[in-house]
Amino acid sequence: MHCRLQDKLANVINDAVKRKRIACAFPELRCTFGDSSIVPDIAIFLWKNIPLDDRGRITDTFLMAPDWTIEILSPGQSYKKVRNKILRCLENGTQAGWLIDPDDDLITVYKSKKDIAILDMENDADFNLPMPEFMQGLTFTVKDLFDLLIM
Amino acid sequence: MHCRLQDKLANVINDAVKRKRIACAFPELRCTFGDSSIVPDIAIFLWKNIPLDDRGRITDTFLMAPDWTIEILSPGQSYKKVRNKILRCLENGTQAGWLIDPDDDLITVYKSKKDIAILDMENDADFNLPMPEFMQGLTFTVKDLFDLLIM
Repeated sequence: MHCRLQDKLANVINDAVKRKRIACAFPELRCTFGDSSIVPDIAIFLWKNIPLDDRGRITDTFLMAPDWTIEILSPGQSYKKVRNKILRCLENGTQAGWLIDPDDDLITVYKSKKDIAILDMENDADFNLPMPEFMQGLTFTVKDLFDLLIM
Repeated sequence: MHCRLQDKLANVINDAVKRKRIACAFPELRCTFGDSSIVPDIAIFLWKNIPLDDRGRITDTFLMAPDWTIEILSPGQSYKKVRNKILRCLENGTQAGWLIDPDDDLITVYKSKKDIAILDMENDADFNLPMPEFMQGLTFTVKDLFDLLIM
C-alpha cells in the first residue's frame, strides 16, 4: 500500500512540474542537512535546487532539506517520529510537508509549524489539498489522493 | 510526570475561571457523546454545561464533549490514538484541544481540525499559548506550561 501510493503520488507531481523543469519528486532520496540525514518517502526539490555535476547529471548527495516533503505512515511506524522528520524539514527551509495516514484515511498538511490542517476522507473528500506555490495551482482533492490506493 | 502536569495544569485553569463560575477543569472525567465515551486527561466545561441534579450537585454523567480538552502524552502511548480522541471532540463541538508531549517538550494546539499549531520549548518558550475565549485572556507561555513539570 505504502509503495503504490509513494510511486503514484510521485508520478502525479512529476507529471505536473517535471517536464516544465519546475521541480522534481524523488522517492527515497537521502537529504543531508543540519547534522544528520533523512530519507523522506517523497522529497520534492525545485529544479534550481537539484545538485548537478559538471556533466549536468544529478549528484548523489543532496545537502539541503527538500522544498516539499511527503511522508506516508506505515502500519506500526511511530507517528511522532515521522512528524518530527517533517518538523525538522520545516525548521530547515522546507515550504510544505504532508503526512499521509492511509490507515485512518487522513492527511496532515503542514504549511509551517504554526499552520497545520488535518483533512480526512469522511469530511473533506472534495477538499482541494493545499499545494506549495510552485505546483502552479494543481488541483488534487483528498479523494484523488486516497483513490491512488485503488488498483 | 503525567499526573503532576495534569493536576497542576487543572489547578492553573481552575484558579483562573472556577471561582468566577465561568468554567471548571476536571481530570479524568468520563464524557459520553456520539456512540461512545472518552476520558480526557483534563476536560474543561463551561459552567453552564456542567450537569447538575435537583440539589445542585454535579451529576455523574457528562453527556457531551468537553468545551476544551487536554491530553498529556505518556511514554509509549499511541500518538495517533490520542490525536484521534481530540479530533473526535472537535467534531462534536469542542472549541479547543491541546496535546502536550512532555518527552519532546512540545505542544500541539488544535483550534479546529484545519487550524493547528505546534509549539516547542526550543523555539517558542515565550509564545503565549492560544486559549479558548472563555479563559478571558489568561496569559500562559509554553515555558510556563513545561515549568509545571519542575519540582
